[in-house]
Amino acid sequence: MSRLLLNCDIGESFGNWTMGLDAEVMPFIDCANIACGFHAGDPSIMRKTVGLALSNGVQIGAHPAYQDLVGFGRRSMAYTAQELQDILHYQIGALDGICRAQGGRVSYVKPHGAMYNDMMANPAQLRAVLQAVAAYDRTLPLMLMATRDNSAAQQLGDEYGVTLWFEAFADRAYDSAGMLVSRQLPGAVHHDPETIIEQALTIARGDNLTASDGSALHLQANTLCVHGDNASSVAAVRRIREALDQQSAP
Amino acid sequence: MSRLLLNCDIGESFGNWTMGLDAEVMPFIDCANIACGFHAGDPSIMRKTVGLALSNGVQIGAHPAYQDLVGFGRRSMAYTAQELQDILHYQIGALDGICRAQGGRVSYVKPHGAMYNDMMANPAQLRAVLQAVAAYDRTLPLMLMATRDNSAAQQLGDEYGVTLWFEAFADRAYDSAGMLVSRQLPGAVHHDPETIIEQALTIARGDNLTASDGSALHLQANTLCVHGDNASSVAAVRRIREALDQQSAP
Amino acid sequence: MSRLLLNCDIGESFGNWTMGLDAEVMPFIDCANIACGFHAGDPSIMRKTVGLALSNGVQIGAHPAYQDLVGFGRRSMAYTAQELQDILHYQIGALDGICRAQGGRVSYVKPHGAMYNDMMANPAQLRAVLQAVAAYDRTLPLMLMATRDNSAAQQLGDEYGVTLWFEAFADRAYDSAGMLVSRQLPGAVHHDPETIIEQALTIARGDNLTASDGSALHLQANTLCVHGDNASSVAAVRRIREALDQQSAP
Amino acid sequence: MSRLLLNCDIGESFGNWTMGLDAEVMPFIDCANIACGFHAGDPSIMRKTVGLALSNGVQIGAHPAYQDLVGFGRRSMAYTAQELQDILHYQIGALDGICRAQGGRVSYVKPHGAMYNDMMANPAQLRAVLQAVAAYDRTLPLMLMATRDNSAAQQLGDEYGVTLWFEAFADRAYDSAGMLVSRQLPGAVHHDPETIIEQALTIARGDNLTASDGSALHLQANTLCVHGDNASSVAAVRRIREALDQQSAP
Repeated sequence: MSRLLLNCDIGESFGNWTMGLDAEVMPFIDCANIACGFHAGDPSIMRKTVGLALSNGVQIGAHPAYQDLVGFGRRSMAYTAQELQDILHYQIGALDGICRAQGGRVSYVKPHGAMYNDMMANPAQLRAVLQAVAAYDRTLPLMLMATRDNSAAQQLGDEYGVTLWFEAFADRAYDSAGMLVSRQLPGAVHHDPETIIEQALTIARGDNLTASDGSALHLQANTLCVHGDNASSVAAVRRIREALDQQSAP
Repeated sequence: MSRLLLNCDIGESFGNWTMGLDAEVMPFIDCANIACGFHAGDPSIMRKTVGLALSNGVQIGAHPAYQDLVGFGRRSMAYTAQELQDILHYQIGALDGICRAQGGRVSYVKPHGAMYNDMMANPAQLRAVLQAVAAYDRTLPLMLMATRDNSAAQQLGDEYGVTLWFEAFADRAYDSAGMLVSRQLPGAVHHDPETIIEQALTIARGDNLTASDGSALHLQANTLCVHGDNASSVAAVRRIREALDQQSAP
Repeated sequence: MSRLLLNCDIGESFGNWTMGLDAEVMPFIDCANIACGFHAGDPSIMRKTVGLALSNGVQIGAHPAYQDLVGFGRRSMAYTAQELQDILHYQIGALDGICRAQGGRVSYVKPHGAMYNDMMANPAQLRAVLQAVAAYDRTLPLMLMATRDNSAAQQLGDEYGVTLWFEAFADRAYDSAGMLVSRQLPGAVHHDPETIIEQALTIARGDNLTASDGSALHLQANTLCVHGDNASSVAAVRRIREALDQQSAP
Repeated sequence: MSRLLLNCDIGESFGNWTMGLDAEVMPFIDCANIACGFHAGDPSIMRKTVGLALSNGVQIGAHPAYQDLVGFGRRSMAYTAQELQDILHYQIGALDGICRAQGGRVSYVKPHGAMYNDMMANPAQLRAVLQAVAAYDRTLPLMLMATRDNSAAQQLGDEYGVTLWFEAFADRAYDSAGMLVSRQLPGAVHHDPETIIEQALTIARGDNLTASDGSALHLQANTLCVHGDNASSVAAVRRIREALDQQSAP
């Protein structure tokens, strides 16, 4: 079984405002999706977050977003494909600049919020993101969502020569298409730690999940998205980390 | 006589607002100081400007500024040395990211507006800028103002291992300390093209200028700052370019 | 025949960037739609623009927009109805504050760009705008687009107790539904001054226009949207003003 | 003894970021200094905060700042007097707009952070603020810092016809000039609740404080600045409220 990486949105503070327990969760993750200033993160926050990632040996991912600080990058905006590529290059470059100053490098890209959702919903948007990553540095993987069938996305990734890292969620219910059940619906989010850890291990083993309609769902995932929002989510990440380490031990 | 480079602030449009005749002036300059989004320039403007520079074989300089779009980066702001370095890395990196996507690279740094003035007035600020450039990429020269005596700045540059490019102005009167005469005073700005070209050639030859008090002033300059604001300034740049080329011809 | 007001987007400069010939067009218009800082306009530009309107006896309209400076408020964004009302109150209030300091008042509201388009396309959005205007000051008219049939909009306006001012365009072709022909299509924009003036007079008289499919189109309009972008558009406004004044003379 | 008002900075959240226990502290204060979007607060936060103040019968003060979100308005910036007035009118108006939509009104003004400090340090800046308040609405008091001798400020306030509300601090040590002891120095901030309450009562009674050099210091104050940052500061505000109420009871 290949190792399931734990990725986490990190560096989402801004100026005088603090969000997330970055220092607490960093020891348990493999990949830090670091905000690049458009939805969260400012240059000083980014510097501190990059330093934290480097000192924990955590891979640094650019977590670019639509330019909407007050909306936290969660509101869809009508960007052209060209504009989208431009803001990707700006944000990836900005984070990379902050990394370089500390001897690090951006090593993958994961769009944030509405940019991520729009990319999953709209192949033209995914193309634009892939083209942006390929033009910046073809060796950087793009992180996106694992669904029942990753083949269409994989085909586009291959076309642009960009490695795809598919991510799954341990704390969310899936429907039969492998999409996340809407947060508006009951049971969309798992709160019980045992359920979350069991789902993480199931995904790690490559076994089937049970979709919301009871059908079996197989997700091919390279990475699991975890959260460092508060003490209980950090505790869950720690337990997932320990369970995965135990599972992968010989 | 070593060649005097012509540098020009470029890419100072923003969104729907246009400023400067970038395409017109680009063929006559050596170095484009490209705005990085904090005082002017947005990711799409930056992409176009970088493309223009690359297609004209013009060196790309990062032109970072304080984060003050409405003030065009011209208002002094109380940044700490650490914050200053952070916004330098962010902006240099952002422009470098946009360059990389087109196969280019940032090749020098010139602070803008109040950041430039504060750096010239305050050695601690110059140190912070030098440290930022050195940490990002020690091979990038820093562009700053030539005065009567560049030695203090040079000593700091040497300390951080950063090459300094001193710039002079052909369209501005100097006082006896080699500082620009304030724009509030009469005669501060030369408008006559012949005067401008003569001052450019004098600087290029390494001959003495006449300061505002009549004393002789020698400026050791690597580059001349020119302007692409409007048709007449572009015409002046063209004539300076031609005069310099003629002067340096064998 | 009741008087057809001329309205014009004004105050769309920002910081160091200038847009539009505000001082030149102001003498010929009745209503200035003044940008409120979210897509254009900053507090100092707003102060100057308000002063110009007051000294010309021109009515001041708030011209609020989505918060998207780099996109000039032209990109649709997914605002909730509540968020939309909040940014309307903020922007109308901000402009009103600047008016009050000069003894003036905002006297109507016209949404800008994507906010305007979304309001025309989506009745829920129109409701949110009406509710915002009614809560701020029920005596302020809302300016929106005249189409073949204004009755649905009028019904909503009546429901919220808000006066509607329907606007028409003299320089744009209409389709048979009374919508503007897309700028992507040939003939969408009139460039010939005579055509523009003739269309203005036709609308002012309440006569039928000829839609793009040749059918007759009657637009019930209170105001005509004119443009102060450049010298030729200002000249057209002047001629429209003169033609309307002549037409309405006894 | 006239009643000592309790004022508190409120509404300093922004977008997805929360700051301060606004709902918890609101019942114990008289005056809410509400952020206006330039250093904190966005239109939706402002709407909620205004609603909270209105439902608690708390006076609403505009808390305008320099436009520096990432710096929380705490960095000095080189504004001209005119620019300063413009951003004051914009912010006061914006908050007033949000108030009007809920049937409320801004009833005083207290500059924030660096704008406040610069106003206290520089009479020209204080003049600009007074002129801005007077032009907006001469009946709005301006809140500023009580020092040993308020007469110079009072003279300026009288000149512009603006009422001044002087504020004192219960949790800060004063020097003999009646200025706050710098936070860099030991003993600058009181942490012991008893000390804070005792200082509040002393100020309320009009008795002398003991300055950092041991000298007696009399502060003529209309209001006391309190803090709702966290549970312990809210608890302190509650106790101050109770102590003041008890003191002023017949």
